[in-house]
Amino acid sequence: MSEKADIALIGLAVMGQNLILNMNDHGFVVCAYNRTTEKVDQFLNNEAKGTKVIGAKSLEDMVAKLKKPRRVMMLVKAGSAVDDFIAKLVPLLEKGDIIIDGGNSEYQDTQRRTKSLAEKGILFVGSGVSGGEEGARYGPSLMPGGNPAAWPYIKNIFQSIAATANNEPCCDWVGEDGAGHFVKMVHNGIEYGDMQLICEAYHLMKSALGMDNEEMSKVFEEWNKGELDSFLIEITKDILKYKDTDGKFLVEKIRDSAGQKGTGKWTAISALDYGIPVTLIGESVFSRCLSSLLDERAQASKVLSGPPTSKYQGDKKEFLEDIRKALYASKIISYAQGFMLMREAAKIHKWNLNYGGIALMWRGGCIIRSVFLGNIKSAFDKNAKLANLLLDPFFTNAIQSSQASWRKVVAASATLGIPTPAFSTALAFYDGYRSARLPANLLQAQRDYFGAHTYELLTAPGKYVHTNWTGKGGNTSASTYDA
Amino acid sequence: MSEKADIALIGLAVMGQNLILNMNDHGFVVCAYNRTTEKVDQFLNNEAKGTKVIGAKSLEDMVAKLKKPRRVMMLVKAGSAVDDFIAKLVPLLEKGDIIIDGGNSEYQDTQRRTKSLAEKGILFVGSGVSGGEEGARYGPSLMPGGNPAAWPYIKNIFQSIAATANNEPCCDWVGEDGAGHFVKMVHNGIEYGDMQLICEAYHLMKSALGMDNEEMSKVFEEWNKGELDSFLIEITKDILKYKDTDGKFLVEKIRDSAGQKGTGKWTAISALDYGIPVTLIGESVFSRCLSSLLDERAQASKVLSGPPTSKYQGDKKEFLEDIRKALYASKIISYAQGFMLMREAAKIHKWNLNYGGIALMWRGGCIIRSVFLGNIKSAFDKNAKLANLLLDPFFTNAIQSSQASWRKVVAASATLGIPTPAFSTALAFYDGYRSARLPANLLQAQRDYFGAHTYELLTAPGKYVHTNWTGKGGNTSASTYDA
Repeated sequence: MSEKADIALIGLAVMGQNLILNMNDHGFVVCAYNRTTEKVDQFLNNEAKGTKVIGAKSLEDMVAKLKKPRRVMMLVKAGSAVDDFIAKLVPLLEKGDIIIDGGNSEYQDTQRRTKSLAEKGILFVGSGVSGGEEGARYGPSLMPGGNPAAWPYIKNIFQSIAATANNEPCCDWVGEDGAGHFVKMVHNGIEYGDMQLICEAYHLMKSALGMDNEEMSKVFEEWNKGELDSFLIEITKDILKYKDTDGKFLVEKIRDSAGQKGTGKWTAISALDYGIPVTLIGESVFSRCLSSLLDERAQASKVLSGPPTSKYQGDKKEFLEDIRKALYASKIISYAQGFMLMREAAKIHKWNLNYGGIALMWRGGCIIRSVFLGNIKSAFDKNAKLANLLLDPFFTNAIQSSQASWRKVVAASATLGIPTPAFSTALAFYDGYRSARLPANLLQAQRDYFGAHTYELLTAPGKYVHTNWTGKGGNTSASTYDA
Repeated sequence: MSEKADIALIGLAVMGQNLILNMNDHGFVVCAYNRTTEKVDQFLNNEAKGTKVIGAKSLEDMVAKLKKPRRVMMLVKAGSAVDDFIAKLVPLLEKGDIIIDGGNSEYQDTQRRTKSLAEKGILFVGSGVSGGEEGARYGPSLMPGGNPAAWPYIKNIFQSIAATANNEPCCDWVGEDGAGHFVKMVHNGIEYGDMQLICEAYHLMKSALGMDNEEMSKVFEEWNKGELDSFLIEITKDILKYKDTDGKFLVEKIRDSAGQKGTGKWTAISALDYGIPVTLIGESVFSRCLSSLLDERAQASKVLSGPPTSKYQGDKKEFLEDIRKALYASKIISYAQGFMLMREAAKIHKWNLNYGGIALMWRGGCIIRSVFLGNIKSAFDKNAKLANLLLDPFFTNAIQSSQASWRKVVAASATLGIPTPAFSTALAFYDGYRSARLPANLLQAQRDYFGAHTYELLTAPGKYVHTNWTGKGGNTSASTYDA
């Protein structure tokens, strides 16, 4: 019998295929399996031809071909497919064997699976995998969490195939149960935000400044040499100038109806559930929803008017630099909000998250990889207990030197009628966050007025009092009515 | 034995007590019950003294005192308390008896309860009740949904005690299973939005215009005579000028940390789940979250700087009118978004919602009652199939005549560093909604570039294509990786 495999991989869509080839490149023997088994043969005879990859005809066959403790990684559609495979695998495995879910599962599912498999002696890992098909093939960012006992057995494979940044692998143990998938979820939410910010910049360049695609591409190329140096800025440069076979710019032919598969939405829902104002991701998800109402928008565009002009009247070069700074400042806010959310989740779920480590995992390999994440890593290196990114001197200064431009861009967008919901919400958050006093005192008074919800005095926090504002509402405070 | 009661009410907090007294005023005999039964005696000997209200010492006692079919209304804390009471009631009731939940239950719970009780022959109703303690006492807005067979048996009581607007009761049957609680949830979400908008106006008056409380109160008093005529504007006028015993304005002494009990959050989560961009409620919920980070804000206010001045330099009177129009336009957007959400939910759950009827239910009695809701009612009266509020000529014109001011206020807020997240997101939504073309084409290109997610061409909607943007990513499109 031939050499046993180091790991099995279930699910031969592009991500699975590329992860296998990546593992093979790093000297690991991988056993490939797919529910429709013809795909295994296809893969072995094409993409995996000439590699050490072996195939399996059934789960039994696959398990028999694995070294112990067995490592089985799934890259299948999140949801019931994961539970189905787990149910089929469990009877074939032994105590101490490891199941890894590399799909975009909801972190609550990963929490549940880690727990229920631990009871059966199986070590479960839910790992975020980012980097798209390119990343999977040549070095993804990997965010494994789950049963910590599994880590020593998968660390070598995971850190070998991961991207590197400053010679360190973009992969480390994230934390208990659902921590890996939670952090991956936040990563994806931040990705939604980064993409939305770039779209808003593009929208302004195109509509307010009337720039053509070559020109816009050059601007993104320039931006990619500075603070904004990142994968998404880089590909935007490529996309903008990519020409279709007819010589026209392909991106302009694409339908402006954004798809989404849920992780951005989950991030926003978590933010609402945990009470953390992750406004930029929220607006980014809603922007995708609005974009998808294409027919409604077409109809509305005929009826609803805008301002007299959408053309920017000032200096173009200066405004481009304003847009760059607006994007940069908004991006800082978005990451600050994302880290606020992780901090809150860690508190609730008792995860011991290493925030600098997370920045490093995202520093390379994944879709949001950037120089910027190196700055975040440095901030946490300087102060592991940093309460908020915005309070790190580097970021405080970065915002400080961007804010005049940022305000100018948000004001101009409002005046010109070009929607920049992410730039705007980031600025509103900043101005709210730096306000010692917000108008919520009025809101508390309103709630007490109509619903007897009580309020606290500035001089006596923690003591809830009710005022009979009208003189006729009574002095009973509410206990069932909610508002 | 004395007269049997028309209805029983469980839960003697302020809302329950006031609803009982309201029913009593309208000639119904109510049997009052509370888990801690001393509260029943207390109530009978005080608030209910001299009325026809009777009390019960136990659920058995309560049920025995009811006419058939028995009507039992609960005003208890949403969640397990409702299920607990249902479980205790079911063995005491007969087929055809009615249980009404008047708390702020999640609509999914109401769907579940309607279904499971129908199987037992019990008719379940989940009813939104709005209006706070005042409304409960003198005429709330009631939004009953659930088992339609119950409606004929509760209609008289419900419509008798409800508020009226233009001589019509602010209560009608909303729809099947969870429809009543869903509509109440959206009502509460809109309430969050209305309150946030007022807070932003107050913040601008106070910080940008340096107005004192008497002056601000007068402005709200003026506003309450026009398009903005509403309960919340009216109470704001009262609150702003309310003086504490020491002669100082009470509202300024209140801690600016907003509480919330969940219904706004649920609305935002539903919006995310159903993919409808209800951005204003989303921002309003997040604003409450941000306000509650009081200590963090205090710390941040010492480090993070703002613009050179937060004082508005232009004409004060003119700017006040701009703020009024910004509030009005934003409010139109918020309601348009809320109705978009109800329309989508109705489609999914097969509820036959009467949108004009909902506007009428909200027109009086509830916290968001306003002249404005009369305009919404009229819009649906003119066109029951109206696709979007913004497309009704009245609202199209209202936005049209407000937009210059609205843009000015959003731009000024950004420049002056005063957060107006709700004004801003409303404007961004408006500008996005009226755009036939949004920048999501770039976003789709990015998703296809890094994740092989495919896109549609403008010329071929429904046909998903993938481009090998880099020449090295491969031609396989993704099926498992999500972004």
